[in-house]
Amino acid sequence: MKNRKLLMIPGPIEFEPEVLRAMGVQTASHVAPNFIKVFGNCLNAMKKVWLAPHGQPFIVSGSGTLAMDMAAANLIEHGDNALVISSGYFGDRFKDILDRYGANTTILSTEIGGDIALEIIERELKNKKYKLLTMTHVDTSTGVLINPEPIAALAKKYNVISVLDGVCSVAGEEIRQEEWGVDIVLTASQKAIGVPPGLALLVASQDAIDIWKGRKTPVSNYYADWQNWLPIMKAYQEGSPSYFGTPPVNLINALEKSLTLILEEGIPKRIKRHQKLAMDFRKAIQSIGLSILPKTDSIAANTLTAIYYPQGISGGDFLSGMTGNDIILAGGLHPKIKTTYFRVGHMGSVSENDLIAVLSALERVLYKLNYKFELGTSLRVFEEECVK
Amino acid sequence: MKNRKLLMIPGPIEFEPEVLRAMGVQTASHVAPNFIKVFGNCLNAMKKVWLAPHGQPFIVSGSGTLAMDMAAANLIEHGDNALVISSGYFGDRFKDILDRYGANTTILSTEIGGDIALEIIERELKNKKYKLLTMTHVDTSTGVLINPEPIAALAKKYNVISVLDGVCSVAGEEIRQEEWGVDIVLTASQKAIGVPPGLALLVASQDAIDIWKGRKTPVSNYYADWQNWLPIMKAYQEGSPSYFGTPPVNLINALEKSLTLILEEGIPKRIKRHQKLAMDFRKAIQSIGLSILPKTDSIAANTLTAIYYPQGISGGDFLSGMTGNDIILAGGLHPKIKTTYFRVGHMGSVSENDLIAVLSALERVLYKLNYKFELGTSLRVFEEECVK
Amino acid sequence: MKNRKLLMIPGPIEFEPEVLRAMGVQTASHVAPNFIKVFGNCLNAMKKVWLAPHGQPFIVSGSGTLAMDMAAANLIEHGDNALVISSGYFGDRFKDILDRYGANTTILSTEIGGDIALEIIERELKNKKYKLLTMTHVDTSTGVLINPEPIAALAKKYNVISVLDGVCSVAGEEIRQEEWGVDIVLTASQKAIGVPPGLALLVASQDAIDIWKGRKTPVSNYYADWQNWLPIMKAYQEGSPSYFGTPPVNLINALEKSLTLILEEGIPKRIKRHQKLAMDFRKAIQSIGLSILPKTDSIAANTLTAIYYPQGISGGDFLSGMTGNDIILAGGLHPKIKTTYFRVGHMGSVSENDLIAVLSALERVLYKLNYKFELGTSLRVFEEECVK
Amino acid sequence: MKNRKLLMIPGPIEFEPEVLRAMGVQTASHVAPNFIKVFGNCLNAMKKVWLAPHGQPFIVSGSGTLAMDMAAANLIEHGDNALVISSGYFGDRFKDILDRYGANTTILSTEIGGDIALEIIERELKNKKYKLLTMTHVDTSTGVLINPEPIAALAKKYNVISVLDGVCSVAGEEIRQEEWGVDIVLTASQKAIGVPPGLALLVASQDAIDIWKGRKTPVSNYYADWQNWLPIMKAYQEGSPSYFGTPPVNLINALEKSLTLILEEGIPKRIKRHQKLAMDFRKAIQSIGLSILPKTDSIAANTLTAIYYPQGISGGDFLSGMTGNDIILAGGLHPKIKTTYFRVGHMGSVSENDLIAVLSALERVLYKLNYKFELGTSLRVFEEECVK
Repeated sequence: MKNRKLLMIPGPIEFEPEVLRAMGVQTASHVAPNFIKVFGNCLNAMKKVWLAPHGQPFIVSGSGTLAMDMAAANLIEHGDNALVISSGYFGDRFKDILDRYGANTTILSTEIGGDIALEIIERELKNKKYKLLTMTHVDTSTGVLINPEPIAALAKKYNVISVLDGVCSVAGEEIRQEEWGVDIVLTASQKAIGVPPGLALLVASQDAIDIWKGRKTPVSNYYADWQNWLPIMKAYQEGSPSYFGTPPVNLINALEKSLTLILEEGIPKRIKRHQKLAMDFRKAIQSIGLSILPKTDSIAANTLTAIYYPQGISGGDFLSGMTGNDIILAGGLHPKIKTTYFRVGHMGSVSENDLIAVLSALERVLYKLNYKFELGTSLRVFEEECVK
Repeated sequence: MKNRKLLMIPGPIEFEPEVLRAMGVQTASHVAPNFIKVFGNCLNAMKKVWLAPHGQPFIVSGSGTLAMDMAAANLIEHGDNALVISSGYFGDRFKDILDRYGANTTILSTEIGGDIALEIIERELKNKKYKLLTMTHVDTSTGVLINPEPIAALAKKYNVISVLDGVCSVAGEEIRQEEWGVDIVLTASQKAIGVPPGLALLVASQDAIDIWKGRKTPVSNYYADWQNWLPIMKAYQEGSPSYFGTPPVNLINALEKSLTLILEEGIPKRIKRHQKLAMDFRKAIQSIGLSILPKTDSIAANTLTAIYYPQGISGGDFLSGMTGNDIILAGGLHPKIKTTYFRVGHMGSVSENDLIAVLSALERVLYKLNYKFELGTSLRVFEEECVK
Repeated sequence: MKNRKLLMIPGPIEFEPEVLRAMGVQTASHVAPNFIKVFGNCLNAMKKVWLAPHGQPFIVSGSGTLAMDMAAANLIEHGDNALVISSGYFGDRFKDILDRYGANTTILSTEIGGDIALEIIERELKNKKYKLLTMTHVDTSTGVLINPEPIAALAKKYNVISVLDGVCSVAGEEIRQEEWGVDIVLTASQKAIGVPPGLALLVASQDAIDIWKGRKTPVSNYYADWQNWLPIMKAYQEGSPSYFGTPPVNLINALEKSLTLILEEGIPKRIKRHQKLAMDFRKAIQSIGLSILPKTDSIAANTLTAIYYPQGISGGDFLSGMTGNDIILAGGLHPKIKTTYFRVGHMGSVSENDLIAVLSALERVLYKLNYKFELGTSLRVFEEECVK
Repeated sequence: MKNRKLLMIPGPIEFEPEVLRAMGVQTASHVAPNFIKVFGNCLNAMKKVWLAPHGQPFIVSGSGTLAMDMAAANLIEHGDNALVISSGYFGDRFKDILDRYGANTTILSTEIGGDIALEIIERELKNKKYKLLTMTHVDTSTGVLINPEPIAALAKKYNVISVLDGVCSVAGEEIRQEEWGVDIVLTASQKAIGVPPGLALLVASQDAIDIWKGRKTPVSNYYADWQNWLPIMKAYQEGSPSYFGTPPVNLINALEKSLTLILEEGIPKRIKRHQKLAMDFRKAIQSIGLSILPKTDSIAANTLTAIYYPQGISGGDFLSGMTGNDIILAGGLHPKIKTTYFRVGHMGSVSENDLIAVLSALERVLYKLNYKFELGTSLRVFEEECVK
């Protein structure tokens, strides 16, 4: 029976059963009173999850890339200087997006798996007048975590709008948008937010909105233009319907359910759960001689772990062995080292049970592929961490 | 018990129960073999539904407006001449979109509820060299149907790319994309396609793709750029995974189910069903003295009917009376006459039972609002048409 | 598209979507705290719906017949006199059941479609010392309604236990178990209770329990024996788990949801809704020359209507014509006249929309079968009644 | 987030998601052509799963106890001798049931956790003329497995009807009803059959049917009487509808789905899967010093394991610790030793992932309760067995 699989990729993830049920409910009219309430609840809950009480939330039909696109399209005008701090594939993508809207983009890339010193960023900010800076909280391609707080502070100091790509972090890593002064925090539904893919989510500060309002040129992307979406969001926040494009009613139903569960768990508790599971998982993985992609533990994400295949193990054999054990993992994504590592997502509804199942399947598959280690070690280590 | 409502707006509509169940299935990995097959099946089925065996289908997370945006963004370069044939709100929106990408857009508007003569279009095409022409098959705001075939033929004659906004028509009105030579036919999932909102759907001809390939300037909208999506679609069509943005797995599951049901019914039979129901419904409506927005029956859509409120009847009272009877209808949308009419969607899974329920509730509500007519008339007329 | 059917038989019926969703929830352990609460809520809600605040509710896995069997098996000992007041198939079945447990059963049958005079019942009660009397509130085979209140009063007067077969009435017809002094009111889930089939439901008075306790012989049916079930019900009422047989967890989940909806609507309002719809439907049916099985309107049920086929119309043709219109009706069930009539259920979530759809399909089918009447008449009459 | 629990009790179990979806489908009429087919498919599939090509299957709304009751009620007449081979709570229950129908029941009980010698059974069969013999394949209360084959052979030799209580074994333990000559094999839906609780399932040999036909006295249980159900089953097997009580449509939908999955996996492969997982699990459990209730490995079930709490560990603390880790286990059930052990179900959709999660949670909970053992041991042992 190969029907109860465990989806442990960095999004989509295992969704809570009640979230999936909310997906399958008979679609309401997008202007029906009950849906207006659902949409409004989502917008309000986002402000709580993002810790941005004065932020302007946006919920738009699209993938996470649309959220990135929306930030760039609305804030960049031709010739603006933009600074991208990249820790992998998605940092690099942000440069492509910004360039598309006419930015002169400078990219500060970390080494693969490495960090970037604040001094380097500050030097760059001193060096040139930037309008906007982007950073990837957790790069889904590498599992590298950056610390947004001091970078956002630098951005503030140099009067630069800061954009945090939180696709792989919102609701799984600590984010205090308003306290840290991040202007835009964006994400997608299918990650730690816990809702099937199809929603681009973003909260913008008043400063970001003001800069958009002060544009001299129109936004060169119609669908992403806040001019279309801002009145809609404001209307639903105030309990009235409004129409630009038909909202994805079923996904928004599911979002309401998942945000409710998130707030019921409580943000600090939820972040701590992610943190502890990730740490324990890394120790377990390392105990059988595997290495993780992030160079130090302090820059390893809570939400996913990228792990190098051991010498002599074929990625294809390994991943198909895992699938044969009903555990779905993801291959590498960073173009330069794609075939040398795999990724395990651990966010949203994830529990110790899930990670134990992953570790055990991983041990059994590696064993069959003749990797040398003592069976059971990673499980023992994981348990020792759990009971601490 | 007010839980079993009948959603009779022009999208979202009443979805088949099995489509809704497909929405709630545990999300698969977007690169899992079973999902690759589902996605590939959808792309192939689209070519059958669109009658475009050599077309290139696109399925992208977004609303119907994104599909319009995608057509404009990929095909228009700064300074291109574009001709919009507008029969309402959505025709006008296409002008806004084209302009955004630098087009010099000429708009040929019908009167509200009226048609436009082919000669006028041809005169315009002769008059100026156009690159692209758009037409709205059924304008959701007015229920006016145009005949795309001769307009597409004119476009071919004058070597203009033709774009058909089929948001309110695909799978409900006759469309023969390849035979008619329409370059792009676009739609959204939540209309006659029968899937909850969240998917922008489009089939492009090879000519359209070639024109895009020959662009001299980059597409100024990152998310909508075919450069991102074309390799993905081709990969899934060939049975391999590929990644640009995470596809909306659950919506695509639901799409596969709905396209299967559509092809099982058969396109000609399905169009005939829509046509007959719409005709019968219009006769019924008119039998109690109501008038429809389209000026003649020949330009009235199969998929929705826009109906003027009778003199002295308040739209708000009428619509809330209908809701009180568990029938959800839509208000007017055309800015100039918004408050004077309402709209009834009848597409997708719609049946005689649904329209009978609408007519009866409508009669009872009008009766209570003191509209003078003989109770039962529209039902009798509808039945007389049905049994013919 | 033949997937959205309207199920208008006298059970199972159209269930509320949220009740169906509760059916598909991942099964909980039958001793888990959350399920204990659900089960307890159901038992308490039953007392409210039955209007039997001091009654003992039972929820057991089985069909409605099991509920009848349970009443007979627990209360009858060999040689007991039982009186059955029968208005059709299910009254006759009660005699079979009682006889099985050794009762000397006397049956007072109404004519088909007719009533029975209270004097006849009282004469019989005077004539012989009965232990138990049964009556069928609404006989599902004929749609005949009896008035239980005076019969229950007679039973009390002559010190006889009264059992009301409410399979086709509970939550659709007025029942005041405690006020009327009915000892047992039993039903099944798939009727006006609004839950898929599989639950036998019953509320017993303290007198009934006492008589069972005072039995001299064991209950000759193991599964139905209250000795097995009473401690279980009491435990769940008090919030503790207890085990005899595994309860049908998913059905009980669905029952909790449906009983909640019933109590939210309110019993008096709900009964009135059923009553009005049934009356209007009968008038409509009769307006096109059809006759109903119950001889007078005062003994016609709220929950279903049995209707004779017009002369010359084949039942098979008629019913398959209705199915072709996505309306599922039931054929006759009373053995003596089975082929001469059909039945329409109208209970639970039923609305005017449903009955309008039934009437219209019925008119169109009869018309095609060459029945002579004026199209639209029954719809007009139904509407006239609705708007009164 | 405590919503994704793992239900590891000996029924109900973790059901396949598609089985649960089949539960929530809009209920069909029990006489609709599509449902007739579903019901017929279930009856035919049962004969394949039971390996009883000439058997008569029954599907009745009720719990597993109803299936036991049905066997007893239909086959026993007052004064018949019956022999019960009991290995726990459910064996003892069979005696209660048989006695209820007037049997003179002799019980041959194993020690708790022990076996019974064939000689003892044969001696008893020689000693007295028995009509019927029952055996519990796996006693859910103890996890003790008996070998039905030689006992059924003895029954045949002495011309005794044999009844196998397969509630905790059908579709999880090897059963060859026809080859072994077992007259009745009964079960319930919520165990290895993989369907939510509410269905009593049973396959009877022609001999059993003949003995029932030859009864001199009526069956003293109306609901369980084959006279009511046999014509129904035969009708649905032949593709016609028939009515006695409304079948539990949604459960039967789910049953069709689950039986299809079972036959797709293949019976031999499925039994081997259960066997291997159970063996590996027992070794793992024993490796950390826990003891299982069955005295030898050869009489330990495939479908569940009963395990003694280690000295000094409170059952309440242990089980609530497990629940706190989202793993739901069952306490003891055998009245004599109830508080000294717990039970883990592992049947149906169970996988290595599930048991690894159980073992790890169990280790962590025992560790916190100060049980002395080396963390990780049982996981290592389980893995070593898996990879053998």
